[in-house]
Amino acid sequence: MASEADKVAEEVQKSSIDDDEDIVNPWDVVSSSAKGVDYSKLIKRFGSTEIDKELIDRMVKLTGKPTHHFLRRGIFFSHRDMHQILDLVEKKKGFYLYTGRGPSSESMHLGHLIPFIFTKWLQDTFDVPLVIQMTDDEKFLWKDLTIEETNQLAHENAKDIIACGFDKDKTFIFSDVEYISESTEFYKMMCKIQKLVTFNQVKGIFGFTDSDSIGKISFPAIQATPSFSSAFPQIFKGKKDVPCLIPCAIDQDPYFRMTRDVAPRLGLLKPALLHSTFFPALQGAHGKMSASDPNSSIFLTDSDDQIKTKINKYAFSGGKPTEEEHRKYGGNCDIDVSYQYLNFFMEDDDKLADIKSRYSSGKMLTGELKQELTTVLQKLVGEHRERRLKVTDDIVNEYMKSRKLKFDY
Amino acid sequence: MASEADKVAEEVQKSSIDDDEDIVNPWDVVSSSAKGVDYSKLIKRFGSTEIDKELIDRMVKLTGKPTHHFLRRGIFFSHRDMHQILDLVEKKKGFYLYTGRGPSSESMHLGHLIPFIFTKWLQDTFDVPLVIQMTDDEKFLWKDLTIEETNQLAHENAKDIIACGFDKDKTFIFSDVEYISESTEFYKMMCKIQKLVTFNQVKGIFGFTDSDSIGKISFPAIQATPSFSSAFPQIFKGKKDVPCLIPCAIDQDPYFRMTRDVAPRLGLLKPALLHSTFFPALQGAHGKMSASDPNSSIFLTDSDDQIKTKINKYAFSGGKPTEEEHRKYGGNCDIDVSYQYLNFFMEDDDKLADIKSRYSSGKMLTGELKQELTTVLQKLVGEHRERRLKVTDDIVNEYMKSRKLKFDY
Repeated sequence: MASEADKVAEEVQKSSIDDDEDIVNPWDVVSSSAKGVDYSKLIKRFGSTEIDKELIDRMVKLTGKPTHHFLRRGIFFSHRDMHQILDLVEKKKGFYLYTGRGPSSESMHLGHLIPFIFTKWLQDTFDVPLVIQMTDDEKFLWKDLTIEETNQLAHENAKDIIACGFDKDKTFIFSDVEYISESTEFYKMMCKIQKLVTFNQVKGIFGFTDSDSIGKISFPAIQATPSFSSAFPQIFKGKKDVPCLIPCAIDQDPYFRMTRDVAPRLGLLKPALLHSTFFPALQGAHGKMSASDPNSSIFLTDSDDQIKTKINKYAFSGGKPTEEEHRKYGGNCDIDVSYQYLNFFMEDDDKLADIKSRYSSGKMLTGELKQELTTVLQKLVGEHRERRLKVTDDIVNEYMKSRKLKFDY
Repeated sequence: MASEADKVAEEVQKSSIDDDEDIVNPWDVVSSSAKGVDYSKLIKRFGSTEIDKELIDRMVKLTGKPTHHFLRRGIFFSHRDMHQILDLVEKKKGFYLYTGRGPSSESMHLGHLIPFIFTKWLQDTFDVPLVIQMTDDEKFLWKDLTIEETNQLAHENAKDIIACGFDKDKTFIFSDVEYISESTEFYKMMCKIQKLVTFNQVKGIFGFTDSDSIGKISFPAIQATPSFSSAFPQIFKGKKDVPCLIPCAIDQDPYFRMTRDVAPRLGLLKPALLHSTFFPALQGAHGKMSASDPNSSIFLTDSDDQIKTKINKYAFSGGKPTEEEHRKYGGNCDIDVSYQYLNFFMEDDDKLADIKSRYSSGKMLTGELKQELTTVLQKLVGEHRERRLKVTDDIVNEYMKSRKLKFDY
């Protein structure tokens, strides 16, 4: 069924993307440039808004907490209605966070961590409930996997998500297969959305064709549903007007453009969004990492040795071919994957700036840069591995149990 | 939303039906003939098999019980794989029955009773489990009703269905909205079917267009799901190979043609079917009765006076304009609605034959024929009304509770 997704991507490419434009949709991200996707163009095309200094300053002022380096460095770069969420915070009114994961493989990689690291920071900073959707039904519909397999993967992946440190009293993780078949309100909301969206609309937004399965065609309503608080009566006590903020990679935006189109017709609030850039593959920023190509990614289960070998062997270098040339002309951080990864994971701004300066000027060699990254990732992944080891099946079940969270409505 | 259904019917008409052919699909039944739909043509068009004397005799022989007049009189006239069901009965192996109702109005009419009367007879004759699907989600998607309203109607209509006399220990009635949101196995089966059916296929079968909602487009999988025993683990103990027999009006056949196409690809058994003709409107056999036109139907809630008035005022007559002409030329039973109704509800073959003979020859006048029908229907509806009165909300809840039935697997 992987070819189905490719076909969809091709269709999207043919029908709606100019030759020089990057391909960005839920199934494929392809850029013709070594620097990766042109995000300013994407903001214009998607009609979202840049996350600017004013927005970041307002968040710092309102929360009294330092900003996250993902915001400072433009990793989360685009938003929809984030000012309206901050208006609520200003009035001491609450909102909730919604993010998700499509469980198609047992091992998650570094790229998958990005929305979760940021969502945890948002949860800590704003002290709000969080729902995390595991779309095991979606992955069954798109991939050559049984529904029992994707459901099992949802539980495995939940361990990695829990290992990010989410507060159990504030977090509900759910598998679609399990939660749809235990929540009447969720299923009703699915039906309400499915009634308002036509095939024409999903064809335009997602590039579906007449040869796609009716499961795929109706799935977007399932990803839209958690954007509305009435889908979680056990958390929000039936309140329909708790606003939703969705941190996600920008490739998921089509789902939420559809959701925001439907919301007013249901008399409900449009969800707000925070969009991240993509985490580049080791081989370069042309696309995002793929869980199906083990050498394109560093997995959260990789050993210290595997991390070191992968970085040394596969991380695309912006350095010059010989040491002599490198010392003379310097490396190019814009295309160097090791530097890009440090930009994601080295929290110390000064140290990162120093590395950039030394690498660009030729003072630092590629081997040294790769060594810096190896140290950072061995620590990050090592700590994650240790936290994940402690996440038992029982702990997963606690997070995935439909229940009231510590917030009162 | 009624116009949506009309549009669909128009599309079906345009795309797949010749000018002289009857329109028969889940949303509309229209015949150009006063005698109604040409059922022999329909059998050829749908590719089903006539219920012949051999099949009826085999049923009588196997069960040792007299046949139902719906079979004797060709009211159930067409089948798929009924001999295979009888092969199982011969080997003392079980099957189960599945039928359903779309709850779009509070009052059910006589036409709605036909599949339930026959299904009760099948349940009594073969002593098998029965599942009855109330498609409240479907009616929400198609009609201008809220999902809370259609769910409430499912409970109201369940009272009329229970009043038909189904054995509680052998019968599970379920609302889609409620059962989908409490049964993981049902939802999984829905997803499995939705993965295997394309938009092209439902377009061909149901006449959907690009302007239809994604809810409508994916709904056929929900009506297909109860055809497989694994959707009811509480009844069949997880057994996937309990064969299913579906008694229904022939307009529902498109759903099950799709189901039978999907079954082998899921490694599951194709459901068998028994198809009924349509119950004509009071005004004539051009179409089936409509719950939305109160004068086209006799409702199960109509009083004795209402029944009498409706028959006298609206029942299309095959009699001649004057008594003199009628005595001379006789009436036409083929188009006379009162006679048609007696054919459905007067169980005594001899008495019915006598009426036919006397009306056709002109010995019996239209007024007398209508009086015969009035007596039969006042008794039938009156007894139904009394039984329905005894069906409390608690009793409905007992039938609609997901549970094991009295059969062991």
